[in-house]
Amino acid sequence: MQRLTLAQRVAADITRQITEGALRQGDKLPSLREYMRLHGHSKNTVITAYEYLAGEGLIEARHGQGFFVCATPATPEAEPEPPPYARALDTIWMMRQQFVREPGHSHLGEGFPPVDWLMDMRLDKFNRQVVRSGITTLFRYGDRLGNINLRQQLVKKLAGYSISATPQQFVTTFGANHAMDLIIRRFVKPGDPVLVESPGYYPLFGKLQLQGARMLPVTRQVDGPDTTQLAHLLAREKPALFFMQSAGHNPTGTDLSAEKAQRILALARQHDLIVVENDAMADFKLSSSVKLSALDQFRRTLYLGSFSKPISAALRVGFIAGDEAMVSELADVKMLLHTSSAEYAERTVNVILREGNYLRHLSRLQERLRDATERGLAVLDELGAEVFCRPEQSLYLWARFPGVDDANELTRRCLERGVMLAPGSIFSVDRRHIVPWTRLNVAYLDDPAFRASLQP
Amino acid sequence: MQRLTLAQRVAADITRQITEGALRQGDKLPSLREYMRLHGHSKNTVITAYEYLAGEGLIEARHGQGFFVCATPATPEAEPEPPPYARALDTIWMMRQQFVREPGHSHLGEGFPPVDWLMDMRLDKFNRQVVRSGITTLFRYGDRLGNINLRQQLVKKLAGYSISATPQQFVTTFGANHAMDLIIRRFVKPGDPVLVESPGYYPLFGKLQLQGARMLPVTRQVDGPDTTQLAHLLAREKPALFFMQSAGHNPTGTDLSAEKAQRILALARQHDLIVVENDAMADFKLSSSVKLSALDQFRRTLYLGSFSKPISAALRVGFIAGDEAMVSELADVKMLLHTSSAEYAERTVNVILREGNYLRHLSRLQERLRDATERGLAVLDELGAEVFCRPEQSLYLWARFPGVDDANELTRRCLERGVMLAPGSIFSVDRRHIVPWTRLNVAYLDDPAFRASLQP
Repeated sequence: MQRLTLAQRVAADITRQITEGALRQGDKLPSLREYMRLHGHSKNTVITAYEYLAGEGLIEARHGQGFFVCATPATPEAEPEPPPYARALDTIWMMRQQFVREPGHSHLGEGFPPVDWLMDMRLDKFNRQVVRSGITTLFRYGDRLGNINLRQQLVKKLAGYSISATPQQFVTTFGANHAMDLIIRRFVKPGDPVLVESPGYYPLFGKLQLQGARMLPVTRQVDGPDTTQLAHLLAREKPALFFMQSAGHNPTGTDLSAEKAQRILALARQHDLIVVENDAMADFKLSSSVKLSALDQFRRTLYLGSFSKPISAALRVGFIAGDEAMVSELADVKMLLHTSSAEYAERTVNVILREGNYLRHLSRLQERLRDATERGLAVLDELGAEVFCRPEQSLYLWARFPGVDDANELTRRCLERGVMLAPGSIFSVDRRHIVPWTRLNVAYLDDPAFRASLQP
Repeated sequence: MQRLTLAQRVAADITRQITEGALRQGDKLPSLREYMRLHGHSKNTVITAYEYLAGEGLIEARHGQGFFVCATPATPEAEPEPPPYARALDTIWMMRQQFVREPGHSHLGEGFPPVDWLMDMRLDKFNRQVVRSGITTLFRYGDRLGNINLRQQLVKKLAGYSISATPQQFVTTFGANHAMDLIIRRFVKPGDPVLVESPGYYPLFGKLQLQGARMLPVTRQVDGPDTTQLAHLLAREKPALFFMQSAGHNPTGTDLSAEKAQRILALARQHDLIVVENDAMADFKLSSSVKLSALDQFRRTLYLGSFSKPISAALRVGFIAGDEAMVSELADVKMLLHTSSAEYAERTVNVILREGNYLRHLSRLQERLRDATERGLAVLDELGAEVFCRPEQSLYLWARFPGVDDANELTRRCLERGVMLAPGSIFSVDRRHIVPWTRLNVAYLDDPAFRASLQP
């Protein structure tokens, strides 16, 4: 068991960034005040950490200018296997950064729709119906699979995508991330190879690292994952799981083509692979978009959904759909780890789906998204950016700017002007990769501060 | 990756029960209908499973009487290491059983207060204030540590127990079970030795098995864990963690004495041990009860609390308190696995603590509990039961009945009369132990059906 003081942790985090090249010789560290604000630490903690690093010769104070990186520490040879928590520290660092909302900053790097796109759905309006649907059960643990009325709504939702399932084929979760964790806990042992998309959803990478899995990256292309790589990795490494996104891929905004979907399913059959189709962006796309689970009907797929982005992340409601036996096992793991999910929140979502004009909410949401995507693409064209793909409607666009070879540098430059970006490197399985691409949230693309920070 | 049909799973579960002696030669299996009801499987699934087991020669159909166990399968020699999920299957089985609420049955084995003890707290009344405290943040992920207003309330709550902490020393969770899982994910590697109480909280055992930990049981005595055993295990096995409960211990209803608390902390200091003080029953006990964290002030303890039992399990709100650096790391693991906890539910609990006459609710709850405990003890005396300890107020009593050497048998007998018990074996680290004790929920002890089922 490793026990460090908070200051030691801060120092270790900064050391890691220096070792891995995220901070380089001559780079300026955040000021004490910035660091405090960014991480919520006390001044004392940050001072102690900086003093420690200065004592180690890693950073130096320049009079009146702040602290600068002055050396790159030697990498110890034959480093011992890090503990599971340490393996995931990179992702933890990234996620912490993403959670910081500086007042007055532009949130171009954010993974979320603006709140005013969601506020037509008055969450408070539904409480009375939630209570009316059974007051006594509001005090108890919910069903192992989740609230039955919500699961019946989910049956209809998936039927709208041509996926047929019974209520026993759903287990509710605390969102899509919880769903991924349940699947990892059930199916992945330390050392197991697991296929992921790269660039891909980086909080997934952290969960796999925590479990000690060996990630096998498959390049995400404009029409889906690179199936030649996929075939090669399946033959060589025999992984049992592939986590992927069909529509509105995070971070690239790309959609899976029907042709690639067929190819992936053929490979899955051939190699006894389970494909986890993370479809957390489903409600931001047309229901006609290609879904693996519609083609496969849960023979080799698990389907993940979430209400965090289209309704509210504060409710923590998502779900897994799949083969009944597999779903039952995942419900067992959920019960073992968290007793049950939140009956109260699930009933709120159920009432919203049933009575909340949810389809009208979604069509408004998608209309806003189409407008923002069109405007966002126009801004990117005007800025001379190369856009990886040009979807009709996608919360994310993946772009590179003239003269930018390393999006980390652009990110640093933008941060100084109050614009938060999501640089491509954070979506790589290997974070040390230098990536020219940036993920942009279309809702914030016409921010003048962003244009200004693109001027060298 | 192991993929079984549901029928194969059912058959494997029953085989395991036969192998491990939970079902013995000549025992009657549940009828098809009972089995369907108990587990929510279809008739076809259960028939397929029973037919498979009959084909294997493990069970036989007796005309008009149902299915009976007819043989114990040979245990394969040198069994390979089971996958993590399989290690925890026993606990999963137990938890599933505990979740079944047969209408008309008595819930003597339940771990929960009756709903009418909680219903003076009108959950719906508080929704308006929840929304009023900030509508836009109702759509977002919450803070990494949890809602700040709730954490400020928790500071006051712990101050009432003479535990001092700042809001940065709390991280909110989806209940006490989620809290335990975060601690296990952060600190326990497969193969690590971990101290637990026996009898003890069995969902904890399942979580440790899933992680591949090696459990070291410490006998729970009337005044707390056996410190002689504890000292011995610390010296021999060098475990880094001890999960224990101070007050209202589940299942025995015992409280930690001040003397034992001091002894445990001395051992913890000597052996660099972290004691996880699970205090999920705190609100059912007087605030003056002995707490390790009050004596230790988080030098070697982590403190777990939950609002599942005193407010509602449907909200899923609990917390961990501890040393700031350690809490920060646990918040990282929470973020990594579940992005954030439920801001919406946390704000509901905050409003209830602030405006809901929560202290009056608790004093009413405790009064009911004192009455029920007194009545429960009287019933047990009348029945000639031996009671392990006679607390003033405790949701659980731990008792054995004349002529009962194996509480599993009593449990089977009671189930036939519609009384659900929690037999002692499920609280043992080794479930195959024959235990004469039973955990009884004081709220249901005067059920006449229970008295009737004690007659042989």
